[in-house]
Amino acid sequence: MDKKHEKFFIKLLGEDNAYFDEAHKIAYCYDATRKRYAPDGVVFPRDESDVSEILKYCNEHKITIIPRGAGSGFTGGALASSGGIIMALEKHMNKILEIDLENMVAVVQPGVINKDLQKAVEKLGLFYPPDPASETYSTLGGNVSENSGGMRAAKYGITKDYVMALRAVLPNGDVIRAGKRTIKDVAGFNIAGILIASEGALAVITEITLKLISKPKFSKTAMGVFPSVESAMNAVFKTMAAGVTPVAMEFLDNLSIKAVEERFHRGLPTSAGAILVSEMDGNDESVINADLERLKEHFIANGASEFRVAKDANESSDIWFARRNCSQAINCYGSLKINEDITVPRSKLPALLEKIAKISAKYNVITPCFGHTGDGNVHTNVMVDKNDPEAVKRGYEAITEIFKATVELGGTLSGEHGIGISKAPFMSLAFSEAEMNLFRAIKKAFDPNNILNPNKMGL
Amino acid sequence: MDKKHEKFFIKLLGEDNAYFDEAHKIAYCYDATRKRYAPDGVVFPRDESDVSEILKYCNEHKITIIPRGAGSGFTGGALASSGGIIMALEKHMNKILEIDLENMVAVVQPGVINKDLQKAVEKLGLFYPPDPASETYSTLGGNVSENSGGMRAAKYGITKDYVMALRAVLPNGDVIRAGKRTIKDVAGFNIAGILIASEGALAVITEITLKLISKPKFSKTAMGVFPSVESAMNAVFKTMAAGVTPVAMEFLDNLSIKAVEERFHRGLPTSAGAILVSEMDGNDESVINADLERLKEHFIANGASEFRVAKDANESSDIWFARRNCSQAINCYGSLKINEDITVPRSKLPALLEKIAKISAKYNVITPCFGHTGDGNVHTNVMVDKNDPEAVKRGYEAITEIFKATVELGGTLSGEHGIGISKAPFMSLAFSEAEMNLFRAIKKAFDPNNILNPNKMGL
Repeated sequence: MDKKHEKFFIKLLGEDNAYFDEAHKIAYCYDATRKRYAPDGVVFPRDESDVSEILKYCNEHKITIIPRGAGSGFTGGALASSGGIIMALEKHMNKILEIDLENMVAVVQPGVINKDLQKAVEKLGLFYPPDPASETYSTLGGNVSENSGGMRAAKYGITKDYVMALRAVLPNGDVIRAGKRTIKDVAGFNIAGILIASEGALAVITEITLKLISKPKFSKTAMGVFPSVESAMNAVFKTMAAGVTPVAMEFLDNLSIKAVEERFHRGLPTSAGAILVSEMDGNDESVINADLERLKEHFIANGASEFRVAKDANESSDIWFARRNCSQAINCYGSLKINEDITVPRSKLPALLEKIAKISAKYNVITPCFGHTGDGNVHTNVMVDKNDPEAVKRGYEAITEIFKATVELGGTLSGEHGIGISKAPFMSLAFSEAEMNLFRAIKKAFDPNNILNPNKMGL
Repeated sequence: MDKKHEKFFIKLLGEDNAYFDEAHKIAYCYDATRKRYAPDGVVFPRDESDVSEILKYCNEHKITIIPRGAGSGFTGGALASSGGIIMALEKHMNKILEIDLENMVAVVQPGVINKDLQKAVEKLGLFYPPDPASETYSTLGGNVSENSGGMRAAKYGITKDYVMALRAVLPNGDVIRAGKRTIKDVAGFNIAGILIASEGALAVITEITLKLISKPKFSKTAMGVFPSVESAMNAVFKTMAAGVTPVAMEFLDNLSIKAVEERFHRGLPTSAGAILVSEMDGNDESVINADLERLKEHFIANGASEFRVAKDANESSDIWFARRNCSQAINCYGSLKINEDITVPRSKLPALLEKIAKISAKYNVITPCFGHTGDGNVHTNVMVDKNDPEAVKRGYEAITEIFKATVELGGTLSGEHGIGISKAPFMSLAFSEAEMNLFRAIKKAFDPNNILNPNKMGL
């Protein structure tokens, strides 16, 4: 980094908000991929005007800049993989600006942590449903940029279903507004729509207006034990096709169950083919109970050997324990976890899990699966020994074949983690050259000098 | 139109699907704006491949082309206002391709009429909620292109909330797919997001995958009579802020009530300031009844002098009669209706209606208002005598001032009708030069030769 540029940023932001030392380069070199790329510097804008000045300068001098929230992404979206400066939004731009009770809307800065917003609105009887597993540390700016999902998606949808409006700064420094604090708004192109899930490559989001809903008064948790993955997957899609809409319909396969049990000794059924964990919510307990009855009928009809409803919060927490801890527990199967979040139409879940099992056998890898089956989103983890290059190679071959199978079943490379750098090599499996060219044309329309988070998403 | 071009289209599509005669030019010159622009020809593609060949040819020869569904738009989106060929999709591309019960998804061609899909899925116990007033004749391709709303938006959202995936043809003839038959999909930019509401200016949509939900088993209609518009608007936003979520929360002002009564003699309260018509639905009658009780409480607390729940379908239909017929009935106030569909955050409804009343008085125009207040969407109709140029001028001055007031209240120029040519002159009231430039850059990324529905939306 040219000293002239360093001086500009220090002058603009103050010495406390622009760093070019080794410590900061190390502190901002990582994300949840565990890949490391040291940036050329780290800047902390204090407000939208700072963001605008930074981008304008970077655009003029063709300096690469990467917006970053909590750095909790799974695909490298916030990594300086092509060098450049990290623009970290979590230090200053982390305020909840407004909770508008009358219109049931929250206005936040991008650095607000998801769970902090959830807590703030729940105190007021309102509810912000999107709950990525990273909710206690990931930021809403990151959630919007990746269009984060979560466990409640089957009933409540994902981040895009709650974004009403955005303020953002274009790479040339222009501030734009997109969307309104209204349910209906069809004036102009849907800029908010294209900024959601754009992985920080089109503009820097500086303010987010989110729809809130009423907080459901009651919720109940249930669990079903199934003899096979297939029977569980059939239960998932047949239950939901019958019009039962649980908040969550989460799944653990046998490998995941065994891993949790080995580590935590909670009395889980280690010989079960799969467990489904389901939650119902609403404002009327009798309706929830009736839904649980229907859930039970469908589970039993599709082969469940056991069905249990938690009697209280403790029992509910017990049931959720296995699901919440399996991502960590499955590390027992290998020192390298190649984890993906493929998603298929729900009816294709049985076929997908069957293919994953076959591919794992073919490449001799262990692939525990768990996840959000209520929306077809399966976290697929190919576990190998990171010190065994041959095993690592087999692991990547297996995941490539799993991606192919997913696309053939009408599914997507990513349900909620995005593409970033991790999945970029697989984009050609899912998109035609015409589609990739369109992505590139859109990138160019927003960012003609290619300064903003470049070379991500296979562009 | 050069004869050479005419010959190309006739050869490609057959004599029955490419017309350059006066009769067809007249038949396809109009839409619901009542403006008329004769096109240079009309072509009827039989399938996606035809759409691609037509666009490729038009792109090479820089021929303007305008995609068209039913021509029911209120803002001229399907008019050949800059000349060119109409590509009419309702003749051949009008099939429901699939209703996937397992994943609760429908796949349709763009020319399918909204209500036909609603009926087809309701037979199977499923539900497609978006219900624009034009539902019995408008096409789903048009609904997606305009991001149509409707009466049920307050509870169920609008078209964009149901579009899972699209196939479309770019102006260069390339076929692209966007989105998946999955709730979660974050691979690549959100192309489906930007095509929704793009008014046929970015690509021609050839296939639409729509989310369906379970059909609610019960619904009940209620009506409240209010002394003033202000009391009714307060009732709307306070009821909804309390977490009551009716399917519909429709409003008629005094002028609308009087117009319906004068024409149809149904015993409406002609001295009332406003009527609210509300509908609740769900799978449990006791929950609906409890919600109606809460609705009643809020209505009475906010000044309703009367509250009535329909006892059966006949009474419900009676209550809805006034709302369904007011658009037609208010024609008694003038031969020219300058109708707009401004939308504000719900809490701003009282202020908006107050401003509309003041502006109408200032310009000496009659402005009956009705609409979807549950989502802040007010159909505002400035009624003047079309043969009185001075009155017409005052009408347009009034509507311009109403737009300004709407934007000042955080609202949008259009909740569901789009911009097209009718609202294009007002875009600068709502968007900055930077925002307009971004719209233009996006248009150029999709359509570098500007052949597809050009010069709309103020671009």
